[in-house]
Amino acid sequence: MRPADLIERKRNGEELAPDEIAQLILAYARDEVPDYQLAAWCMAVYFRGLSGAETFALTDAMIRSGDILDLRDALGRKVVDKHSTGGVGDKTSIAVGPIVAACGVPLGKMSGRGLGHTGGTLDKLESIPGFRVELTTEEMIAQLRDVGMAIVGQSDRLVPADKKLYALRDVTATVDIVPLIASSIMSKKLAAGADAIVLDVKVGDGAFMKTLADARVLAEEMLELGRRAGREVTCLLTDMDQPLGRAVGNALEIREALDTVRGEGPADFSELVLDACARLLAYSDLGIDVEQGRRRAAAAVADGSAFDTYERWISAQGGDPDPRSLPEAPVRVPVVAPRDGVVTRLGALAIGTAALELGAGRRTKADPIDHSVGVLCFAKRGDAVLAGDDLAEVHARDEAAAALAVEAVLAAYTLGDEAPPAQSILLDVMT
Amino acid sequence: MRPADLIERKRNGEELAPDEIAQLILAYARDEVPDYQLAAWCMAVYFRGLSGAETFALTDAMIRSGDILDLRDALGRKVVDKHSTGGVGDKTSIAVGPIVAACGVPLGKMSGRGLGHTGGTLDKLESIPGFRVELTTEEMIAQLRDVGMAIVGQSDRLVPADKKLYALRDVTATVDIVPLIASSIMSKKLAAGADAIVLDVKVGDGAFMKTLADARVLAEEMLELGRRAGREVTCLLTDMDQPLGRAVGNALEIREALDTVRGEGPADFSELVLDACARLLAYSDLGIDVEQGRRRAAAAVADGSAFDTYERWISAQGGDPDPRSLPEAPVRVPVVAPRDGVVTRLGALAIGTAALELGAGRRTKADPIDHSVGVLCFAKRGDAVLAGDDLAEVHARDEAAAALAVEAVLAAYTLGDEAPPAQSILLDVMT
Repeated sequence: MRPADLIERKRNGEELAPDEIAQLILAYARDEVPDYQLAAWCMAVYFRGLSGAETFALTDAMIRSGDILDLRDALGRKVVDKHSTGGVGDKTSIAVGPIVAACGVPLGKMSGRGLGHTGGTLDKLESIPGFRVELTTEEMIAQLRDVGMAIVGQSDRLVPADKKLYALRDVTATVDIVPLIASSIMSKKLAAGADAIVLDVKVGDGAFMKTLADARVLAEEMLELGRRAGREVTCLLTDMDQPLGRAVGNALEIREALDTVRGEGPADFSELVLDACARLLAYSDLGIDVEQGRRRAAAAVADGSAFDTYERWISAQGGDPDPRSLPEAPVRVPVVAPRDGVVTRLGALAIGTAALELGAGRRTKADPIDHSVGVLCFAKRGDAVLAGDDLAEVHARDEAAAALAVEAVLAAYTLGDEAPPAQSILLDVMT
Repeated sequence: MRPADLIERKRNGEELAPDEIAQLILAYARDEVPDYQLAAWCMAVYFRGLSGAETFALTDAMIRSGDILDLRDALGRKVVDKHSTGGVGDKTSIAVGPIVAACGVPLGKMSGRGLGHTGGTLDKLESIPGFRVELTTEEMIAQLRDVGMAIVGQSDRLVPADKKLYALRDVTATVDIVPLIASSIMSKKLAAGADAIVLDVKVGDGAFMKTLADARVLAEEMLELGRRAGREVTCLLTDMDQPLGRAVGNALEIREALDTVRGEGPADFSELVLDACARLLAYSDLGIDVEQGRRRAAAAVADGSAFDTYERWISAQGGDPDPRSLPEAPVRVPVVAPRDGVVTRLGALAIGTAALELGAGRRTKADPIDHSVGVLCFAKRGDAVLAGDDLAEVHARDEAAAALAVEAVLAAYTLGDEAPPAQSILLDVMT
């Protein structure tokens, strides 16, 4: 295998053999192929794409670059997992996990930090005083047996080729390439040993996929990888034209996830959480269907068992489950409706950017995160408001930051005279 | 300047500002931008191209990455230079230099080694026992004053960004990109201070540019760079469907160049050499036109002054000008015509590959070169032969290598019954 030949053939639009892709990626993981050759290859893939067989070979090689975690073997039962492509205010896993676990299905999730408008799931959890994300695999398995629930930082030994390749793509303008995204997501899920996976592909202004058509392409790539690997996969395509729920910001989102576990969450977010739970339960070894799953999830919320599981989970990872212990921003300023009307649009990207400016997210890997700051969007698309009502509330570290954010949040709202057509958060389901 | 942004914008088909390109290339030359970012950028350029302004900015930045040699200043007169894009049996500069110098116009050329079917000009010259290619700039200038002629290895201090970028392109399948080729060639010519440049763009089977249309595109890019830099440039587009002259192989080509300087060279090669000389003389400060240039060049060959200059040049660089000192291969085997007929085709690439297999060229930078081996093609396109005539002669280091080469050379010949249309070696001239 000469890497330059593989780059040239991909550049020329040829399909590479699975074994050629495997050799390239595994040699790269062993530092035997330099970054500059993979960078050129990724850029060629941007223009030429990858076939289904090539994408699967890439995914398989990434998995083989590191350890494979067999949770099924360790737990003696079918393992389900969920993953979201990420958006503004996305705290879904933190609410889904305790509900599913309360229904008797363990959910062990490895998660990342990532760059973005707010932190990743790990950053959000670290809002909780004492919470530890660095568990060994043995600790994670013990906790799954004991509490049924764990969210931990991704092991460096799992899919190291993906970690290395992602860091390279991040600095070579080769992130937004559908087969590479699909392969990166699915390699981690497959290496973690999930038998069935529920994927949440976000669509809209605040997501990587801006249109439903683009999201369907990514979903189809991931479904195809699941099929080739012999796993069950469902893709939810969900709305990210406005933020998910009300809360955008790390501690604010933990609070909202907890509210949702208790049955007091915002409508759109609660709907998504229950839908994801229903599908995970239907994939589990409980032997129930999606409708039965939905009823069980709702029951676990209603009877308090989901909340109980949340508390036991957070405690097991060293955190204080009492929401009063979460950090609070010193300055809170309302964003007031300038007129009567109905919210016709609430830009997810604009709200996400306002949260980032407040300090809730990272621009570069080295940036610190302020867990307390963010935005609460009380009024969402379709809500009627009167002049003077609070549309939203900015949580900031000082008055100056708050003033800038208030302006940005106000600009993210469009008020009209007629309600926009009602739209479910769930845009499509693909299997 | 964030390199990732520049990569992304080029990837998206945007034109970058001259200053952005300058910053990217100069930072790369200073090792402040890593190879992997330039590799991704070059691959994006493969698909998106560069505008004339971008290509000039790139060329200008390459020049500014190192020293600029002002031969005009050092010699007190107008400086002319020539460059060939390379092909099979291309020893033009070695014959052109002494003829032009004999006419009173100094020609100081920096040359490379490169990978290829035979060595580069420097490798060919190193066939000559004692010949030194590593001259300091001061030695080169002194020799130009004294003998009027020098061919030396390219200084590491001249266009270092090009050297670095070329090495990267070589291993990332980004060599064959017209604006990058044009920029690489022209940056070296411009940094060496040439006022007027004659470019020989080879076209055909044995050249990088396979068709006249492609060659015209490259020629136009180089002419445009010359115009933007305020220099006079002429592009000869010349035939490389068959090898140039008869000799392919390092010492064999030196011998043929010398024969040509003495007026005893093969017709096609002699024609090209005299044409290039004529145009260089017309560009010089002699104040003559191309026709007068051609007559003076022919006279310098006829009266022996070109040969005299050749001897003085080779001696000045420490070499033995007597062709009997050149290394000779121990095994010579003729390639015999299997039938009566006329040569309708003689594949340059096939002959070049046969020479490479004999050991005349390098596959990788570390490969040694055997200066003695190669192929002499006695019969060229349009020549009538009888069964049993020698079409060619293989010069090899042993019988086994010779046998393989004989087979390959024979396969490179196509014998037919009717002569192909006559075709000048000079396909076009662009200014």
